[in-house]
Amino acid sequence: MNIAMNINRRQFNYGLIACLLAWPLRGIQSQSALRVNGKRIVDHILALAEFGKNPQGGASRVAYSDADKQGREYVLGLMKSAKLDVKIDAAGNLIGQRAGSAAGLAPLLFGSHVDTVPEGGNYDGVVGSISAIEVAQTLAENNVTTRHPLEVVIFQNEEGGLIGSRAMDGELTEKELDLVSRSGKTIRDGIKFIGGDPMKLADVRRKKGDIAAYLELHIEQGATLDTEKIKIGVVEGIVGINWWDVTIEGFANHAGTTAMNNRQDALLAAAKFIEAVNRIVTSVPGRQVGTVGRINALPGAPNVIPGKVVLSLELRDLDAAKINMLYEKIRVEAQQIATASRTKFDFKEINVNIPAPTDARIRGLIGEAAKELGLSTKLMPSGAGHDAQDMARLGPVGMIFVPSVGGISHSPREFSRPEDIANGANVLLHTLWKLDRS
Amino acid sequence: MNIAMNINRRQFNYGLIACLLAWPLRGIQSQSALRVNGKRIVDHILALAEFGKNPQGGASRVAYSDADKQGREYVLGLMKSAKLDVKIDAAGNLIGQRAGSAAGLAPLLFGSHVDTVPEGGNYDGVVGSISAIEVAQTLAENNVTTRHPLEVVIFQNEEGGLIGSRAMDGELTEKELDLVSRSGKTIRDGIKFIGGDPMKLADVRRKKGDIAAYLELHIEQGATLDTEKIKIGVVEGIVGINWWDVTIEGFANHAGTTAMNNRQDALLAAAKFIEAVNRIVTSVPGRQVGTVGRINALPGAPNVIPGKVVLSLELRDLDAAKINMLYEKIRVEAQQIATASRTKFDFKEINVNIPAPTDARIRGLIGEAAKELGLSTKLMPSGAGHDAQDMARLGPVGMIFVPSVGGISHSPREFSRPEDIANGANVLLHTLWKLDRS
Repeated sequence: MNIAMNINRRQFNYGLIACLLAWPLRGIQSQSALRVNGKRIVDHILALAEFGKNPQGGASRVAYSDADKQGREYVLGLMKSAKLDVKIDAAGNLIGQRAGSAAGLAPLLFGSHVDTVPEGGNYDGVVGSISAIEVAQTLAENNVTTRHPLEVVIFQNEEGGLIGSRAMDGELTEKELDLVSRSGKTIRDGIKFIGGDPMKLADVRRKKGDIAAYLELHIEQGATLDTEKIKIGVVEGIVGINWWDVTIEGFANHAGTTAMNNRQDALLAAAKFIEAVNRIVTSVPGRQVGTVGRINALPGAPNVIPGKVVLSLELRDLDAAKINMLYEKIRVEAQQIATASRTKFDFKEINVNIPAPTDARIRGLIGEAAKELGLSTKLMPSGAGHDAQDMARLGPVGMIFVPSVGGISHSPREFSRPEDIANGANVLLHTLWKLDRS
Repeated sequence: MNIAMNINRRQFNYGLIACLLAWPLRGIQSQSALRVNGKRIVDHILALAEFGKNPQGGASRVAYSDADKQGREYVLGLMKSAKLDVKIDAAGNLIGQRAGSAAGLAPLLFGSHVDTVPEGGNYDGVVGSISAIEVAQTLAENNVTTRHPLEVVIFQNEEGGLIGSRAMDGELTEKELDLVSRSGKTIRDGIKFIGGDPMKLADVRRKKGDIAAYLELHIEQGATLDTEKIKIGVVEGIVGINWWDVTIEGFANHAGTTAMNNRQDALLAAAKFIEAVNRIVTSVPGRQVGTVGRINALPGAPNVIPGKVVLSLELRDLDAAKINMLYEKIRVEAQQIATASRTKFDFKEINVNIPAPTDARIRGLIGEAAKELGLSTKLMPSGAGHDAQDMARLGPVGMIFVPSVGGISHSPREFSRPEDIANGANVLLHTLWKLDRS
């Protein structure tokens, strides 16, 4: 497209009547024909994958590591190439701004993250980040100006607790800054390391209404889209996540001399508990999940009956009431196990992320955009946490999922097909466009 | 008793006819009146407890530690005071010899160990060791000479794999010497540290028939005697112990995005396995035990479905056939769990101790001795391993148990009452005496 397609309002105001009639039509038609450069997205994803690349595949770009810092520098370069006005905010988030044509409008934010879990993959966060930059580049190359100012945001340390987005919505506490992240650095030192200033986090903080909306494209990280051969997931919301540490106290004793009926085996009680969690979570319809992912049995010798077990319990659902209902059932069953096994259960709440519903209007626009692009859609929850859940405190949010092959994520085997990524980026582009004009 | 009671054969040979008639009767009568000094046993137990004493009670005298070495030096002193001819053999065992009156008889061995588990108690091994020395001292103080030579043996590193007794029966391999013990030293270096010579282990080795018998007094380490208020346990045998490491392979995946019906949760499979082990082991009558004491779930994060679990499985019984039968049932059930959960189970045999029955004649003599002392008895297996199981390869063995309060062992809370210890030591003395004359 060689003709200028800048739809800056002033052009309308000062144009001829013919232009007033013709331009908008032509503009709408042309915008709907806009497509991202899918090959360029994949090239950039693969180039970013070189930073922290692991021999067995995938990458380790744990937030605040050298690889993370180097990867961010590469991404910063891409943002500049996309004609974004780039800065690192005090929290260490990469912000790429693009002016809008209308005065007084709050910015439309879109982006994701580029840090990974240890031995992670090349798609989680990266697909949404690189695609957001690609959308900006596509707009720039086609001289398209939106009404709202745009901000591409690459949040820092998503995998270590949504640190960048929690700084932006004001949830990040002073105390948390001293926690040691997986990089070995404290969050405070990590923020400094990547170019932020932990003394000025107040500058980063935004309040409700400061953003017009936030859009995030992400890989599904589950197998639903891949299994059902659906191209676009329209995210209903980000599930609430409740995490407890459960301590089971029995009595450690000699595995040879303590008769079976004389034991207070904390690991046997834990086994019954793990089975109960699975049974209770799957006993009601819905997409809720419950997981015991971590277990530690003490003293941990083959010839000693475990006297103490500490395990994690995590429940997720879009509906906080359902999480509470499941938790209550689990508590009741734990008490029965405790009584029968002469052990004691103690539940300690470690973390609660409340469910974050997406905006109904944005869900509709994502659906429209996908339909116009000829892509099948499915309404679905996000079982994983995302920066979007924090942005939901500041304004309406929407999330677009693309298929993950085999549902694999947080693994070197994580993979999304180039065509699926391009589809997602085009849906992002057109949803953004619709949102800008709505 | 002030009169000399030396029953050295030469005295009989050169005595008068009157003496020939009177002495044996007087001797038998006097021997049956012999009693150990119970207070002295407890004093010595408490004095030994000072070596490696823990602030929270109990002691850590892990084999080859400084505390172990110092404790052994103290014990060596007690052995010398008991008029034993003391040496440290090439394996590092403390051997206290006392000549017998009859020529050509193999020695009667009796003893135990003084090393402890980390953060262990003051009674496991120590009661048998100190009582054995007390028996020797009682004989010496009363000028009693047995027909058989006597050897008080304090085996080294019982808790770390019966190292001293396995050197004596020739089971200890050259390869094992390079294993790192809980002290941090290799077994080879540990043996040097405590005064042995790992190059000369062949000197320590004895063959079947080299010992007339082996007797060991030990705390029960279970709650049977304490609960049933029985004073003396007559050990039927030492159970066989089979230990496997079981690896369960599932698939690690995101705990939020992987639907419940799409999981291959290795920890859920492990939980069902642990429950099955307990159910199978308790499904048949008998005193067999089965324990899962160690578990490791990977990657071990609250938000990741465990993809791999490694756990220990230990089965013990006096009857090896029963262990095999239980193991086969467990294997069958594991296969069912694997199929249902789309996981894979792999069993790796780590160690097998075959059951070691005690000698029927010695069991009878222990029973007689206890009866004469007015003590109740119960025939019972030893669920724990003991040096006696290795000595059973060299000759007939017998074991005497005394009550452990609450059945607690391998714990600072381990305790046996002074009167129960004295009873056990007296049963040891009189069983030894009967054995010597039988």
